[in-house]
Order: sequence, then C-alpha cells, then structure tokens
Amino acid sequence: MKLTILGCYAATPRTITNPTSQVLEIRDRMFLIDCGEGTQVQLRKNKIKFSKINHIFISHLHGDHVYGLVGLVSTYMLLNRVDDLHIYGPKGIKEIITLQLKLSNSWTNYNLYFHELESTESETVFEDEKVIVKTIPLKHRIYTNGYLFLEKFNERKLNIDAVQQYEIDQVYYKKIKYGGDITLEDGRVIPNTELTFDPDTPKSYAFCSDTLYNEDILPLIENVDVLYHESTFLESEAILAEKTMHSTAKEAARIALKANAKNLVLGHYSTRYESIQKFKDEAETIFPNVFLGDDGESFSF
Amino acid sequence: MKLTILGCYAATPRTITNPTSQVLEIRDRMFLIDCGEGTQVQLRKNKIKFSKINHIFISHLHGDHVYGLVGLVSTYMLLNRVDDLHIYGPKGIKEIITLQLKLSNSWTNYNLYFHELESTESETVFEDEKVIVKTIPLKHRIYTNGYLFLEKFNERKLNIDAVQQYEIDQVYYKKIKYGGDITLEDGRVIPNTELTFDPDTPKSYAFCSDTLYNEDILPLIENVDVLYHESTFLESEAILAEKTMHSTAKEAARIALKANAKNLVLGHYSTRYESIQKFKDEAETIFPNVFLGDDGESFSF
Repeated sequence: MKLTILGCYAATPRTITNPTSQVLEIRDRMFLIDCGEGTQVQLRKNKIKFSKINHIFISHLHGDHVYGLVGLVSTYMLLNRVDDLHIYGPKGIKEIITLQLKLSNSWTNYNLYFHELESTESETVFEDEKVIVKTIPLKHRIYTNGYLFLEKFNERKLNIDAVQQYEIDQVYYKKIKYGGDITLEDGRVIPNTELTFDPDTPKSYAFCSDTLYNEDILPLIENVDVLYHESTFLESEAILAEKTMHSTAKEAARIALKANAKNLVLGHYSTRYESIQKFKDEAETIFPNVFLGDDGESFSF
Repeated sequence: MKLTILGCYAATPRTITNPTSQVLEIRDRMFLIDCGEGTQVQLRKNKIKFSKINHIFISHLHGDHVYGLVGLVSTYMLLNRVDDLHIYGPKGIKEIITLQLKLSNSWTNYNLYFHELESTESETVFEDEKVIVKTIPLKHRIYTNGYLFLEKFNERKLNIDAVQQYEIDQVYYKKIKYGGDITLEDGRVIPNTELTFDPDTPKSYAFCSDTLYNEDILPLIENVDVLYHESTFLESEAILAEKTMHSTAKEAARIALKANAKNLVLGHYSTRYESIQKFKDEAETIFPNVFLGDDGESFSF
C-alpha cells in the first residue's frame, strides 16, 4: 500500500504548496482522492500515470478539494482516454462538471460515471475482488465524506519448497493460494497448511479531511493501518478550528489513539504556520506513529 | 504599457507550461485576460498583486482559458477582498462560477459583477477616463471574443521651463496638461503650445486567442501597437489548424502585416513542438517585429 501526497495544504494553491489531493495504490489499483486546483500538474510532477486512475473520490465541494477535477476530466479527453472513469462525490458534482463541459461544447470520448452521495450513514461505494471503499461521514461546514479503503482477503503465500516436494503441478497453485487442500495421485490428501504460509493481513487506509473532531467515526476506522486525518490548526488555534469545523494536530492524534490506528498521517495545514514540524510535535504528545504529509511525499505501509 | 504572459500554451497545464492567461498594465490599470488552471499560482510566481486586478476578461469557455477563474474568485474571498470584481466573458460564465460557489455554500464578501457577452459584433465592454476595452469577435469552435485595449487621450506634457519662466502656479498644471491656455495676472494670454509638449500617442493592445485566420478583424485592430495573436500550429500543420479553428504562426504574422500592427506577440503554442523558436522564424518570414510569448515573460511597449 503506497500513499502519495500530491497536495496537503488548506485553502488556496500557492507557489510551493498545493491543495488537497492524494493517490492511494493498493493491490494494483490506483485511487485518486480529492482533486484541488493543480492536481493534474502534481500527477505529472510525481510521475503518476494518468491512465492508471479509474476511480476518483471527492470528499466535499470546497474548492481546495475539487477545483482541479474538471481540468483533469478535460485532459483525459485530450489524452484520448478509453477506459471508464468513475467519480464519487457529493450530490452536485455531476452538475459542476457537466455544465462546464456543456458550455465548452465538449464531451468526454470515454464513459464518465458519477456516483453522487447524499447519505449521512457510512455506505460501500466501491467493491471489486480485491478492495472495498466505504464512506466515512464527517462533520464539516458542508456535506463531507472521508473514505475508508479496505483490502479484501489476501491469498495465502505458496510454500514453494513443500509444493515442489510433493511435485504438485502449477495448475493447482491458484487453488492452493485460495486455501484448498490437494489430493495427490496416490490418494494422499495434503492439507493446505502444509503447502502455504499465512497471508499478509489485509491493509486499510482511512482518509479524513475536512472535519471537526468527531468520535462518531471511531467504530468505522478502528484498527486502521493508516489514518490520514486533517490537522488544519495547532491546539493554540483550537477555537478557530472549532469555528471553522476543522481539527487540530492534537485532535487528529486523539482520534488515531482512540481508533487504535497503527499510523497517523497529518495534512491540510493552514498556511499561517511557518513550519509544519510543530504539527508532528504536537500530535506526538498523544500518539507515537505520526508522519507529516507533505506535497510530493510518498509513504509505503 | 506592460504585458506579462502568465501562460501561453494550448490545452492542458503541464509541469513547465501553463494555459492561457496574461496581465496587461496600462495607465495604472491592471487587466487579467483569460484564466486557465493555475493562473493564481502564476500570479504569485510573477509577483503580481492580486488586489490590483479589478477586471477579468475571458475570451471563451474552453477549459484552458477559464478553469482557473473559480479558484481565483474563491481565493479573493480568503484574502478578504473588498473592491468590486468585474468579470467579462461569454454567456454561461456566471452560471459556472455561481454554481460552484453555491454548492460549496460560500459567497464572495466583495461585489462580483458578471458582464456576459453574446454579441457577434464588436462592442465596448469597459470604459473609464483612461482606457476603453472593446471585443474582437473571433472565429473558433465556440463563441469567442478577443479584446482590444485602447488608451484614451493622453495628457499633454508640461514644459516645466516655460511654466516656471511665466511663474504659473501649480494649481494650473492640470488645466495646462489638458490643453488649456493661461491668462497671466498682467492680462497676457499664453497659448498652451508654449507651455506643453505633444503627449505620447495613446497605445493599444489587441488580444486574439483562439481563432481561425480571420481578416474580418482587420478594421478593428488596424495600426494596433501590439497584437497578441494565437499561433497554435506551424504552417506544416495548416490543415489541422483549420480543422480545429486555430491559426498558424504564418497566419498570425499575415494578420499583423495586414493590420499594420507595430508588434506581434505569439502564443497558444501546441505542446507537440519541442521548441517554440520555429514559431518566430516562421512568422518573421512575413512580418518583422515578432516576439515569442512565453510563461513568465514580460514585454514593455
């Protein structure tokens, strides 16, 4: 599981900082999460193949999370995209994009599917054989969802020595990886446990931006491997955080602690602070495994 | 008159090139012309004060000319803009911007005026005591206007030696600059020609992007000081230029020549070409004073 931060600063794009966008690579899938202005340039800078992205998840319709989307959709037209593109986001996102395409008298040469969200309960919005994506209802000034990415059951790992010792043909490897026992030609049954090792534990990633401190999300993100939680402010601006329905670094850490998350990635920093190191320092007073998200940073978990 | 090119490449924003946007400074006014994605970052990079821009002119609603506008409008909110902001552009531009503001549940804390254009004839869209702006109807795949910026009458230049010789009080300087004669205390009338030099000739700037080669615009831009004319392609791609309703460098030069323009600035280059020098070379076979627009370049005329 690899997370690349394309942008993780609040509000306006600046010369050296970008609004929210990130790419999650998980089980050969590549998901784009939020798409602030300049995201397509950040994709280029970080050498991420545009064509590998088929699903885009938008948390909410504040500009610093979505103003880059119409440009990306248009660029896919110019790149002669063929594959379907799926966009998940709050109701209204379809109108925003289609109005602009209509007024520029252009339409996508690929299928563009909108999955508009309205529910205030968590729901499964994406599922295939390897990954599930669920919404995490957040509390912000407008309707906002975080997203929880869950790896599904991992295949068991082949014990290649054992398999070769029993002279088992490759045609059975898939069955073995999925937990099957094997009956040899002489009738002996070899139990799966002799042929495989335990699989990697399925990984999980929770993206939570933007939100007021909200313990309601804890059951959803319990034991998550990586929690990205916004930390727009430091505790010194706690009143402003509450007023604008954002979180402080300390609050993000408290959520990570209470959710029993393994790792916490911070981001969505207000640009009022000269250095982001203070966010890490503050969060570490509560929770040990804190990583500072920053534009262009990648994390492998 | 100073022209700063924020972006002058066609189609998608890339790591090193930006879509169309430019700033024209003329008689202490600062006009933003077109606003592709990333324009606000380009404004910052070029150290242009956001607050000095009160009028934004959009040629057409293709993304590479307008996708940065909603972000700029939003950033002005965050910067606590107070002054009115005027946006001129094709009908529909108001809906694009207001829909996005509505869905993000935000509204500007300053007055935002839209001047939507529909006419296919040239019309005056802005006029104050120093500058006039007229549309230049262009031929493109969707409704498109160029813009002609005309300095109005310049004040005459004070002949400070003559004025001091007659001991004329400063209170009369404005009257003199505007062409008035002066009656001295002894009754003598001093004609204005003795007190002033001829003013600078009013300057003019024509912005023409995007357009098919179109001689219909010649009467409008006749004798213009500076013509910015798109040159998406080289003559080798003339068929593609016609098909996509764009111009070649040679065609841009031909328009400059026939309009008796003093200077030609090229731009809106397709990113298919490795070097833009060829655009200049090609245009110079037709017209002498060719300047290559490029992101971050400034021209003073």
